[in-house]
Amino acid sequence: MSSSSSTLPRVLINGESCDSLVISDRGLAYGHGLFETIRLCQGRPVLWGQHMERLQKGCERLGIDVPKHFGSELMKEVWRLCERDTEGVIKIIVTAGSGGRGYAAPQVTDSQRIVMLFPLPEYPTDRAEGVNVITCNYRLPLNSQLAGMKHLNRLDQVLARAEWQDPDIAEGIVCDSNDKVVEGTMSNLFAVKEGVLLTPSLERSGVKGIMRDFILQSADAMGLESREVSFTVAEFKQADELFLTNSVIGLWPIKQWDEQRYYKSVTTDIFQARIQRLLNEGV
Amino acid sequence: MSSSSSTLPRVLINGESCDSLVISDRGLAYGHGLFETIRLCQGRPVLWGQHMERLQKGCERLGIDVPKHFGSELMKEVWRLCERDTEGVIKIIVTAGSGGRGYAAPQVTDSQRIVMLFPLPEYPTDRAEGVNVITCNYRLPLNSQLAGMKHLNRLDQVLARAEWQDPDIAEGIVCDSNDKVVEGTMSNLFAVKEGVLLTPSLERSGVKGIMRDFILQSADAMGLESREVSFTVAEFKQADELFLTNSVIGLWPIKQWDEQRYYKSVTTDIFQARIQRLLNEGV
Repeated sequence: MSSSSSTLPRVLINGESCDSLVISDRGLAYGHGLFETIRLCQGRPVLWGQHMERLQKGCERLGIDVPKHFGSELMKEVWRLCERDTEGVIKIIVTAGSGGRGYAAPQVTDSQRIVMLFPLPEYPTDRAEGVNVITCNYRLPLNSQLAGMKHLNRLDQVLARAEWQDPDIAEGIVCDSNDKVVEGTMSNLFAVKEGVLLTPSLERSGVKGIMRDFILQSADAMGLESREVSFTVAEFKQADELFLTNSVIGLWPIKQWDEQRYYKSVTTDIFQARIQRLLNEGV
Repeated sequence: MSSSSSTLPRVLINGESCDSLVISDRGLAYGHGLFETIRLCQGRPVLWGQHMERLQKGCERLGIDVPKHFGSELMKEVWRLCERDTEGVIKIIVTAGSGGRGYAAPQVTDSQRIVMLFPLPEYPTDRAEGVNVITCNYRLPLNSQLAGMKHLNRLDQVLARAEWQDPDIAEGIVCDSNDKVVEGTMSNLFAVKEGVLLTPSLERSGVKGIMRDFILQSADAMGLESREVSFTVAEFKQADELFLTNSVIGLWPIKQWDEQRYYKSVTTDIFQARIQRLLNEGV
C-alpha cells in the first residue's frame, strides 16, 4: 500500500520485493499455475476485472487455492509496482506453490502471487495499419480439460513461435490436430465475412483472450452478428477482413496471410477505434 | 569437483548452492525445459547414461542449447550433492533460461542446470507384492510433437492425479482422447498376455520412461517377444499379468485394476529380479 522508495521493485512475490522463486514450486516443476498479461495505460490496468475473473476461474479449474481477498491484494501490489509508471505491461503469475508428493498436490495449495512490470514491447508502429502472418506447421492438441485457460504449460506456443525468425512476420496462425484454425501463437484471430464477425471456437484448444471477449461483447453491443466457428485455414482466408487481438497489442489488422493480401476496412476500423477508447477512457 | 564441506547443499543451480530460480526463467514462464528423476542406489545414479541421453535429446527437440560437456558437469554436481548419501532420488531440471521475447526464445538459450537430492519416497513396502490401480477419467491429448519427452508441461498428470485421494490406490491409468491406454500418471504400464510383453505405444502421447526402455531391452535380451500396442482399457484388462515401472519405484505388480484382480506370476517375477540386479550390481 505505502511505498515511498525511489527505487520501486519491478517484481513482487506475495507482496515482497524479490526476483526469484523457490526451486520446489509446482509452477516450475509442472507448470501448475496461470498467468495474466495486462496492459497498463495512462496509469490504469486495462480490463482489470476481466483479467481477475479469468485468473480466479483458472485457479479453480487447476485446484489452486487463493485467499478470499486475492484480487484486492493483487490490485494493491500492482499499484505499488506501477506507482511511477503510466505505460507498460503487467504480468501476473499465480502458482500452486510448493508441496505435495510428485504430481499429487497438497490438500490446500500454498499459492504464490508474482506481479511483474515490464516496459511496453517496442513493436513497429505501422503494425496498427496491417501485419504479415504465416500459417504454422505445428499443430495444437485437442484437450477440452485445459482449453481456454492461460496456464503455464506453453510449450505448444514456444514450438510454434520457433518456426520463424523474420521480423517482418508479426504472427503465426496455429491449427489444431484436425486442421481447424485455433489462434495466433500470442493472439486471437478474427475475421469479417459478409458482415458477420467470425472467430475460432476455443472449446477444445487455445487461450480465451480478454481482448477477444472484449471484441465479442463490443460486437454484441453494436448489433454486429458474431459466430464462433471451426474453420480450416482455407475457409478463414476467404474473409473480407482479418485481424488479431491481445491485451498488449490491442488490434493488428492482417494485411498478408501467407501469399494472400487483405485490406483493412470499416469493421476493423470500428474495433480499432473501440479499443482506442478503452485505452484512453477505460471503458 | 572438490567439496569437503560438512553441510552439503541439497540443491545446486549451475553448480552453485542455491535454492531459488530467477523469476524470468522460461522454465517457469512456459515450462520450457525438461527433467529427469534418477534413483540413487548404493551411491550410484542408476541408468545414468540413459537418463543423460534422453535429457540431451529432449533439449534438442525443445531448442535448448547445452554446453559440450553438459553430461559430465551434471555428473560432477551429482557426486557433490550425494557425497554423504547412498540412497535417494536425484531430480535434474534443465530449463531454457531467461530471455527472448514472449514465446520466441533467444537465438542461443542460456540453459540452467538444477540438480536436487531428495530422500526415497516412503511407499508402503508391500507394493512390491502388488498394488491397486484405477482408470482415470482425464484424457491425455494426442501430440506427437511433444510425445515421449519428460518436459515441464505436466498439467495433464497433475489433473489426472487429482482424481483420487485414497492412499490404497497406488496409481491411475490414463487413456488418450481416442480411449487408448497411454500410461500411469507417474509410471509406464506393461502387460503379459500369452507369453508376449505388451506396453502402450507412446508415439502420440506419454513419457518414454528410462525403466520402460530397460524392461523392453531386458525382454529382448532374454528372448521374450514384446510389442508396443494401441489398446483400450478393456483390451489391457484381459492380460495375464500387469505391472507398472518407473525409475524410482522400479516395478510394482498390479493386483487390482478397478474391479478386476490379477496375480503376480513368473514373468513379473523375472523382471523384478532383473531390476533388483540392476539396483544391486548396476548392470
